[in-house]
Amino acid sequence: MEADFSQATVAIVGLGLMGGSLAAALSSRRACRRVVGITRSESSLRLALDMHFVHEATHDLRTGLRDADVVVLATPIGDILAKIGMIGPLLRPGCVLTDVGSTKCQIVAAMESLPPHVQPIGGHPMCGKETSGLAVADQSLYRDKTFVLTPTARTTPEALETMRHLVTSIGARPLIVDADTHDRMAAAISHLPYAMAVSTINAAEDLADGENLAWQLASSGFRDTTRVAGGNVAMMADILDTNRDQVLAAIAFAQQQLTDIAGCLRKGDRKGLEAILRAARHRRLEIY
Amino acid sequence: MEADFSQATVAIVGLGLMGGSLAAALSSRRACRRVVGITRSESSLRLALDMHFVHEATHDLRTGLRDADVVVLATPIGDILAKIGMIGPLLRPGCVLTDVGSTKCQIVAAMESLPPHVQPIGGHPMCGKETSGLAVADQSLYRDKTFVLTPTARTTPEALETMRHLVTSIGARPLIVDADTHDRMAAAISHLPYAMAVSTINAAEDLADGENLAWQLASSGFRDTTRVAGGNVAMMADILDTNRDQVLAAIAFAQQQLTDIAGCLRKGDRKGLEAILRAARHRRLEIY
Repeated sequence: MEADFSQATVAIVGLGLMGGSLAAALSSRRACRRVVGITRSESSLRLALDMHFVHEATHDLRTGLRDADVVVLATPIGDILAKIGMIGPLLRPGCVLTDVGSTKCQIVAAMESLPPHVQPIGGHPMCGKETSGLAVADQSLYRDKTFVLTPTARTTPEALETMRHLVTSIGARPLIVDADTHDRMAAAISHLPYAMAVSTINAAEDLADGENLAWQLASSGFRDTTRVAGGNVAMMADILDTNRDQVLAAIAFAQQQLTDIAGCLRKGDRKGLEAILRAARHRRLEIY
Repeated sequence: MEADFSQATVAIVGLGLMGGSLAAALSSRRACRRVVGITRSESSLRLALDMHFVHEATHDLRTGLRDADVVVLATPIGDILAKIGMIGPLLRPGCVLTDVGSTKCQIVAAMESLPPHVQPIGGHPMCGKETSGLAVADQSLYRDKTFVLTPTARTTPEALETMRHLVTSIGARPLIVDADTHDRMAAAISHLPYAMAVSTINAAEDLADGENLAWQLASSGFRDTTRVAGGNVAMMADILDTNRDQVLAAIAFAQQQLTDIAGCLRKGDRKGLEAILRAARHRRLEIY
């Protein structure tokens, strides 16, 4: 890839919320020379062109990737893994290959097997919405957000530099983290909260036992606590599946917390109960 | 109590967020003849008078309650229970006694022992904030919110009618629910979400194992999922304590959900996993 990102051609595979917003951000900021969108959807292809999110759009992977200096895989994790396995021969020598998948260990491991002429590096922007699709794409989605970069053992300084340029050019903050650490932290602050939100709704449903009164009484606390449970099911199952060990560890820690709270309530241990509640409150006030 | 609420004197015991907001709503809407505030805090007494939330304010329970047609207990649950036990002789014949406590079974049971000249009825407005105190009181806090009324076995139609007037006069919607059902529903949509938010933060802290990177990566999903864990610890411990059986049932249901999710991940049961996630998503889309 050329040293000057402003002269680069960036191909984005998948024009959903993340890929579409990335295309829109790059194009609107004139961050690179050309943005090429690759999508299987006819309506997304049309919309991306009509909105000037891309300079060019195609259904054909080979055509779309041919001249790319940087390729961003922005499809569901399962598809990202499949594409990494077959995309190598379609890429120019020196092409930087990255992705926006929410888990990184499996993706970075798959990248190790790419042909030597490809420059891989994992990526994960810490932003999103509960809704998906190009229709809700937003050129400011990445602004002021952390964009994690997870280099592989073979990531070159040049590839890292290119990605720093890409990330800062869309207003995000690059943060370099190894894939293992990323996945553990992501389990803590994203995958566990999702599993907890899902469990909260389903348990509330069990307790309400068919009475709609529960939902009538629900106020902003229930709404916010369960918001992320509205996310795309297949995408979230992919995320949990590809970060299984860390998610299982996180769930075990959460189960222990619930067991401790229940134990304090059963024993009437008010001091113990308040200590648990206070620890969470203090940590939250420190973060926000 | 007189038939015409607009001629009533309403005494509010406790001028925190809930009591202060209620005083402000009643006064600003001229919903009743007089609003009397009773508080132990000198600064709250001054502030309530200065802001014209009350017509009169006192530290003395006897003085404040003497002429009241309606008395609203707006202190923490432990104090509400204590006040119910001693307040009877200070109330006029026919005085309606209510409260804004977040759990109702213990409060309504305590109300049964009031002297016969008192007209008790439980109350719980389904609104609040993460911050507390008169300084954040808001005359529109109750507007368009559901205000649960839990009659006791001895609640008269007149007392219920008076409370309907009070609730609608501040822009809220009265909803009559028995105390048992209220507490079960409140466990589902409020107390469980709180316990889950607390457990999410503490488990994330366990998994992050001292690395601040976790909080740096946390985005809006973590923020919203854990918001209610910022609530007042003593108040929330009171709520969990006084709704112990329902909260324990709710926690058991949530533990089962987490166990099921973990089981699907361990077995690689993708269909089972998606079924759990989809049930939560569907319910949430039905509610919001």
